[in-house]
Amino acid sequence: MSQRGLFITFEGTEGVGKSTQLANAAATLESLGVDFIQTREPGGTPMAESIRELLLAPRDEPVNETTELLLMFAARAQHLYTRILPALERGQWVLCDRFTDATFAYQGGGRGVSEDRIAQLETLVQGEVRPDHVVLLDAPVETGMARARKRGELDRFEQEAVAFFERIRDTYRRRAGDDPRRYHIVDASSPLETVTTQVRDLMCKFHADLL
Amino acid sequence: MSQRGLFITFEGTEGVGKSTQLANAAATLESLGVDFIQTREPGGTPMAESIRELLLAPRDEPVNETTELLLMFAARAQHLYTRILPALERGQWVLCDRFTDATFAYQGGGRGVSEDRIAQLETLVQGEVRPDHVVLLDAPVETGMARARKRGELDRFEQEAVAFFERIRDTYRRRAGDDPRRYHIVDASSPLETVTTQVRDLMCKFHADLL
Repeated sequence: MSQRGLFITFEGTEGVGKSTQLANAAATLESLGVDFIQTREPGGTPMAESIRELLLAPRDEPVNETTELLLMFAARAQHLYTRILPALERGQWVLCDRFTDATFAYQGGGRGVSEDRIAQLETLVQGEVRPDHVVLLDAPVETGMARARKRGELDRFEQEAVAFFERIRDTYRRRAGDDPRRYHIVDASSPLETVTTQVRDLMCKFHADLL
Repeated sequence: MSQRGLFITFEGTEGVGKSTQLANAAATLESLGVDFIQTREPGGTPMAESIRELLLAPRDEPVNETTELLLMFAARAQHLYTRILPALERGQWVLCDRFTDATFAYQGGGRGVSEDRIAQLETLVQGEVRPDHVVLLDAPVETGMARARKRGELDRFEQEAVAFFERIRDTYRRRAGDDPRRYHIVDASSPLETVTTQVRDLMCKFHADLL
């Protein structure tokens, strides 16, 4: 029987280089000969994508906060049970762009949803399943915002956005600080080659730890 | 300030005459001069209807049991917070075709989903909110099936269906027996005029109790 794969998530606020470092991590795993899949939240399966579209669809009716939270976890349950866990059980590693930490950071820290409610749903949906490793790309919000601005991704509510992203970053950092064995903070404000080296080294270390 | 309205749900297995008795209850409330709305689960708002369509859409991907349960409660949260509670707070009564008892009966009793998980979601979504009164239209499964068959609603899996609906009926009856103050069992196998009189008398009693 093959060994269970590792479940690795990438987290961070806008503009910290998550996509670039996911591609770097994938290239590293390929060079190590690791069998893996790459996926993302919210989404990851056709059904989960449909739920995501339902969440994003513009509508006159205001969406209740609990409705939104349950839809996010419904999509996550579908993603986890039909895609992530089967891959891990086949021995594949899973690289996932965001997971439940993002719900704690964005809905909890950013928008003030009770962390206790999020934790209840986390347990209800995931049982004991948590990512084996969380790579947190961390940078001062202004750094990430400046990069996002270059890409034309910021709108006129920038001032409000800064405070919002500060709360998200604080939540990520607090969670990482509470469990340093699973969370790996990478300073995403360093030069790109430094960040890339650190992420590559993390992948190599996760791989070596299994041997 | 107006008095809070009453939240009354109608429950029962297929073919027990739920639609007929909802219409009867509505006519009774009208004759009593009660201001009310009539609604149904799953659904009740455009967003909740979209979630319902997502649940019913045929797809190749098997829908995970937890995904389905979370989608049902997401629709319920939207229905409860954007339609039912605002009506009750305006002083309107709410007549609702099925609510959380149906989740306990169909998903729990019928399909074996853990009642503890359902109860956790009930509390997470509803807090302390429960229907003030549940009218349970109860009849032996064969009676309801025979009526449903006349309407052409049964398929070739009837034998399996009987055992399934027996479990649903048992769950409804057990829940009603546990809380006789809120649950009102009406023998739906009685002649129609008897059932109609009993439901009308219940509405009149609920109304008189408020005076």
